Amino acid sequence: MNILVLGGDGYCGWATALYLSAKGHTVFTVDNFVRRQWDHELGVQTLTPIRTLAERLKAWGDLTGKNIELLVGDVTDYDFLASAIETSQPDAVIHFAEQRSAPYSMIDRKHAVSTQVNNVVGTLNLLFAIRELRPDCHLIKLGTMGEYGTPNIDIEEGYIEIEHNGRKDVLPFPKQPPSFYHLSKVHDSHNILFACKIWNLRATDLNQGVVYGTLTDEVELDEALINRFDYDEVFGTVLNRFCAQAAVGHPLTVYGKGGQTRGFLDIRDTVRCIEIACLNPAARGECQFTEQFSVLELARLVQAAARKMGMSVEIDFLPPPRVEAESHYYNAKHSKLIDLGLEPYHLSDSLLDSLMNVAIKYSDRIDSSLFLPQVEWRNPRNQRRQGSRSLAAVSSGESIV
Amino acid sequence: MNILVLGGDGYCGWATALYLSAKGHTVFTVDNFVRRQWDHELGVQTLTPIRTLAERLKAWGDLTGKNIELLVGDVTDYDFLASAIETSQPDAVIHFAEQRSAPYSMIDRKHAVSTQVNNVVGTLNLLFAIRELRPDCHLIKLGTMGEYGTPNIDIEEGYIEIEHNGRKDVLPFPKQPPSFYHLSKVHDSHNILFACKIWNLRATDLNQGVVYGTLTDEVELDEALINRFDYDEVFGTVLNRFCAQAAVGHPLTVYGKGGQTRGFLDIRDTVRCIEIACLNPAARGECQFTEQFSVLELARLVQAAARKMGMSVEIDFLPPPRVEAESHYYNAKHSKLIDLGLEPYHLSDSLLDSLMNVAIKYSDRIDSSLFLPQVEWRNPRNQRRQGSRSLAAVSSGESIV
Repeated sequence: MNILVLGGDGYCGWATALYLSAKGHTVFTVDNFVRRQWDHELGVQTLTPIRTLAERLKAWGDLTGKNIELLVGDVTDYDFLASAIETSQPDAVIHFAEQRSAPYSMIDRKHAVSTQVNNVVGTLNLLFAIRELRPDCHLIKLGTMGEYGTPNIDIEEGYIEIEHNGRKDVLPFPKQPPSFYHLSKVHDSHNILFACKIWNLRATDLNQGVVYGTLTDEVELDEALINRFDYDEVFGTVLNRFCAQAAVGHPLTVYGKGGQTRGFLDIRDTVRCIEIACLNPAARGECQFTEQFSVLELARLVQAAARKMGMSVEIDFLPPPRVEAESHYYNAKHSKLIDLGLEPYHLSDSLLDSLMNVAIKYSDRIDSSLFLPQVEWRNPRNQRRQGSRSLAAVSSGESIV
Repeated sequence: MNILVLGGDGYCGWATALYLSAKGHTVFTVDNFVRRQWDHELGVQTLTPIRTLAERLKAWGDLTGKNIELLVGDVTDYDFLASAIETSQPDAVIHFAEQRSAPYSMIDRKHAVSTQVNNVVGTLNLLFAIRELRPDCHLIKLGTMGEYGTPNIDIEEGYIEIEHNGRKDVLPFPKQPPSFYHLSKVHDSHNILFACKIWNLRATDLNQGVVYGTLTDEVELDEALINRFDYDEVFGTVLNRFCAQAAVGHPLTVYGKGGQTRGFLDIRDTVRCIEIACLNPAARGECQFTEQFSVLELARLVQAAARKMGMSVEIDFLPPPRVEAESHYYNAKHSKLIDLGLEPYHLSDSLLDSLMNVAIKYSDRIDSSLFLPQVEWRNPRNQRRQGSRSLAAVSSGESIV
């Protein structure tokens, strides 16, 4: 298949582009490198020293003989996006080209607005471009389990049958997103559902759990192909932060009681899920994750893995910066991809070792000041640059890069 | 109360600003006049010859001794919006400052994007401005019953209790909006709900039915105060179009079978609902309409009213330009405002006479070519300016204004 990966320089996009290329698909990728700009803005950097996308793609070509064509531009620029569709003639488009951090969207009004405009306009442009130029192309849009919030009933995959006053209908599962970022994904999902209905487009809206892990078979081929490992408070996810904290002997920082429970997915399963979706274009509104854990359970898993490696790690409980339930019911259904043949990886000690090993390998690049939350849901205000923290991080970044 | 009406030059905003001023509130109003610009773009005009907002406000002051202050600017410009909040120190903000036409949002990609960006960014700005500058102020946001689509179960007022696998929760009622405009309102509703939750803001999200009628007690005081009457295919609502068609002996144009059923609300009830909301700031997520009719029922009511006035009117059935069910279940709850004391007007023959009389009074301004749908949900493409229709309308508009 011809597959166009939007956002191929990002964490999921990079792993996905390589996996699909290795599987023999003709892969094109689009990026505008704004994700790297956000690192500069925040004074943070990936723990792993990733190369430029051009270098990484050249290394992939040299190692495997497979070419991934790079198209540089912004999906909110319709003329560019249309030219990318014309150039790649895709059978499937994988859409990762969105601002994906909840804390980033909560920094202040400008970040909330830019997140929603970027994500909503990019997806609208893509829907119109597919309709106009490539109507049989299958859109695979990455959403998040976070769209559903934490309802007190089981989360169904996309839709729920409601019986009410003696009548029945199957309706979209109600959404209760917990940040302006998550809201942007809900907006996208509603726009996609409508476009599919009126234009008969084919789209799969994948609501993934929190993705973890750095290594995939492709990325492991060479150091030049290494993927991002974000551990800062804005773009880092909780498991990455815990592993980085363990690697430098910092206490694991749990917010509130740590009962916040989410679905998790190994990045090796992310890339496989996406190929399954490409090969099964009828599916719609799926939930993708393989296991669910509370934050405290994750902290205890990291603590246990560190102990096996001879390290002693404490757990600190901090006031929660987000407005969220510290303990709640959580049970989300996720059988469709298993039915389509996915055999999931599990968050086992060995994975923790591997995540931990990456953290330890690059521990001289860890800036502990990046662990602590600066974005405050209740009081969104951009005062990041006023502290000495960011300056220190920027200068340490400069000395290493 | 100090009340700030955003979008005071529009159809609902104008009637609301006058009503609240007459009731003794201190009213400020904001507008950027983009609604008038859209008439120029489309080559259409209101049936009634409305004056400029400055002239209308002066006439209101001269007639009643009551001053409504006008602040000219755009709510997507945060600095302007913040200054308007500072100036007016509102106890309540009524937010009508959105692009409100479903067909307009379906013209093409640019109109879809501009509708969603305008509406979402304006509402985000307002939420941040209230939080920052006037946190006790009550936001009254106008939504639409159209957000719910036409589910096969009864539509509850904002929320529904769902029992599922032996557990229960009260969740937002699922939305199935039928245009990019309706989607923008759904995006707004989700953003508002979240902002209220994390910042303890006070907001009432009023999902109104289709508003009809031109005259209110205030508007009737003087010809200089007359309100808009849109009958064109983009901004006109179905009842207005039927009355204008009846007034010039044109067949009433019903799309498909005419079974499309919606809730309807007299503009005199709209303005009273808004004052009730102002005085009862706890309410949230209400549905406002007083009666529901199918399009064919409306056509028959107009036909019967015309017959009483000695006019014979036909009904034409045209292919539906929208992607929607031509007949469906529709039952929406709407008791909360009745509980708060609203005694609704009903869509009676007398009202049709009054709407019809306005249409007949200004029938020399009616351009019959504006009745027919040019926006096509299945094929959004801006070719309006290529036909002779728009040119004729523009020149007829110029000769009259």
